[in-house]
Amino acid sequence: MSQSISYADAGVSIDNANRAVAKIREYARATFNERTLTEIGSFGGMFSGAFPGMDDPILVASADGVGTKLKLAFETGIHNTVGADLVNHCVNDILVQGARPLFFLDYFATGKLEPDVTAAVVEGMARACKENGCVLLGGETAEMPDFYPPGEYDLAGFIVGVVDKPKVIDGKSIVPGDVVLGIPSNGLQTNGYSLARKLFFEVGGYTVDSYLDELGTTVGEALLATHQSFLPQIGPLLSKNGDKSVAAPIKGLAHITGGGFLENIPRILPDGVTVEINRGTWTELPIFGLMQKLGNVSDQEMFRTFNMGIGMVVICAEASAETMIGQVNCFRIGRTTTGKGVSIV
Amino acid sequence: MSQSISYADAGVSIDNANRAVAKIREYARATFNERTLTEIGSFGGMFSGAFPGMDDPILVASADGVGTKLKLAFETGIHNTVGADLVNHCVNDILVQGARPLFFLDYFATGKLEPDVTAAVVEGMARACKENGCVLLGGETAEMPDFYPPGEYDLAGFIVGVVDKPKVIDGKSIVPGDVVLGIPSNGLQTNGYSLARKLFFEVGGYTVDSYLDELGTTVGEALLATHQSFLPQIGPLLSKNGDKSVAAPIKGLAHITGGGFLENIPRILPDGVTVEINRGTWTELPIFGLMQKLGNVSDQEMFRTFNMGIGMVVICAEASAETMIGQVNCFRIGRTTTGKGVSIV
Repeated sequence: MSQSISYADAGVSIDNANRAVAKIREYARATFNERTLTEIGSFGGMFSGAFPGMDDPILVASADGVGTKLKLAFETGIHNTVGADLVNHCVNDILVQGARPLFFLDYFATGKLEPDVTAAVVEGMARACKENGCVLLGGETAEMPDFYPPGEYDLAGFIVGVVDKPKVIDGKSIVPGDVVLGIPSNGLQTNGYSLARKLFFEVGGYTVDSYLDELGTTVGEALLATHQSFLPQIGPLLSKNGDKSVAAPIKGLAHITGGGFLENIPRILPDGVTVEINRGTWTELPIFGLMQKLGNVSDQEMFRTFNMGIGMVVICAEASAETMIGQVNCFRIGRTTTGKGVSIV
Repeated sequence: MSQSISYADAGVSIDNANRAVAKIREYARATFNERTLTEIGSFGGMFSGAFPGMDDPILVASADGVGTKLKLAFETGIHNTVGADLVNHCVNDILVQGARPLFFLDYFATGKLEPDVTAAVVEGMARACKENGCVLLGGETAEMPDFYPPGEYDLAGFIVGVVDKPKVIDGKSIVPGDVVLGIPSNGLQTNGYSLARKLFFEVGGYTVDSYLDELGTTVGEALLATHQSFLPQIGPLLSKNGDKSVAAPIKGLAHITGGGFLENIPRILPDGVTVEINRGTWTELPIFGLMQKLGNVSDQEMFRTFNMGIGMVVICAEASAETMIGQVNCFRIGRTTTGKGVSIV
């Protein structure tokens, strides 16, 4: 018992963590704004909670992960995009209720902390935070030996935004006869990756480096396409929403995430209202057709798992549709009717 | 290519997730209060952001995990305490800045979703949320095949609280000659578990079921002792803090988390102020002495890794010390002086 055991012997390096935190601090500080009242390194991040221009401020919060899309980062060695996937996913999840992002925190967990990998992940988060006008207010970097295989990590994000109560978007005004618009996605966004990986790598026998003509790129690059934030398109309309004099108010927004078309659109529909989607009214990205063919996947399963090329659904009145199409890059993909659920015709 | 592949074939069951979410919804709803404006299942959780009684509300946010303490849950099959560890850890992390919790969100990731395990974890979180007057506003439950070994999961939490700016506790008023008080912990709280597990299970050869006289319990139970919230003790003092007429204001609070005594106390000290801790002034829980002996661990390493029986440090003026000791269950463990860092004498 003469040999002395240290925390580092147990696989945890506080020094390594401190080195990673120094880089995180630099990236995070670049996202700070006049509402940020703290430094990374405090126990909690501090942010002004005064909303002087609002009648009744509502905080909107959401938590999310990147799922097995992370495996693509491990396999390609590209670590500076998954953070942006996560931030943009979270931004979209609160945007659907009419909220603009205030701040974001992350949880990064790995078996053995590699400061360069951590820094790349955080760089992606910080970049996306900045693009969305969101502060990277803090986070947790956890080194957990024997918990993650070498070179792997998990990543979760938490966002808080704000919306003035009269401008909340909640789908309550949706009625049969409204128009369903779809904003294009540029890939799988952040869901369906377990199935996608099975189809490409197990069934298809491809690797991340396989170049496919149908995709015009490698499988790895196509699958790593960054989940886009729809705030730049929807944001300019938010401040006008809830104002009765506005010509084209948004009645409902659905982010097409886990559960695909079939599970996400019903989340915003009032009882007794259904959505009929007309396939062929938008460009289904080639990657979806390719996956469907590879695994002989049913249409039902495709629409329940993937976004099929539509990243966000906007519902508005028929009278507003043309104005909306002029303001937002979207397709007219269907309409609301009486009934339950979502049908694809 | 006649066999059709589904998302479930890729290891992801949306039905299983929906069953888990139904239980989560039930536990979460029990934590809702009049400020909660939403249902679990919306894309984002909604919470009133109006703070009418405050001059200048500051939101304080923190993210954290449970670290390898989770391995104890896996090994013992006790899953309904790690959620409370996480919530209480987060509550303490914002309490040190003077904030009371508003709402909490979690991230739960596993390889194969077992609805009963997920429910037990969430039950622990919801119970602790309720005890802390905090709403479980939402979260993400991720099924990630091949990401976690069978029976394992990771868990992260995110908390937002609020403090009125004049009542922020930031350590800035700490001067040499102040008193350092320590509130007892009931175990390792939520850090140092990689080292603790190495010492007990590898070096000592014990199992979670080994009963040790020194501990008066099994190793598993001792290591799973729930991280306590210090809000019940500190909370009643918060509303008075910042009021110049109060006899015993808190100058600084440090939560003894990852980095132990040596890394956490300096986070709240102004430049040029150091802390001298007098060992022997409080009861070091037997588990710490046992671990130190098992691994011949240096004092320095013990104090840099573990809380050594002090869960939270309170710094106040000498003139306030007796009043504080009458209000909070704590020991007088040292004083501030001129210099840098923390010394244990």
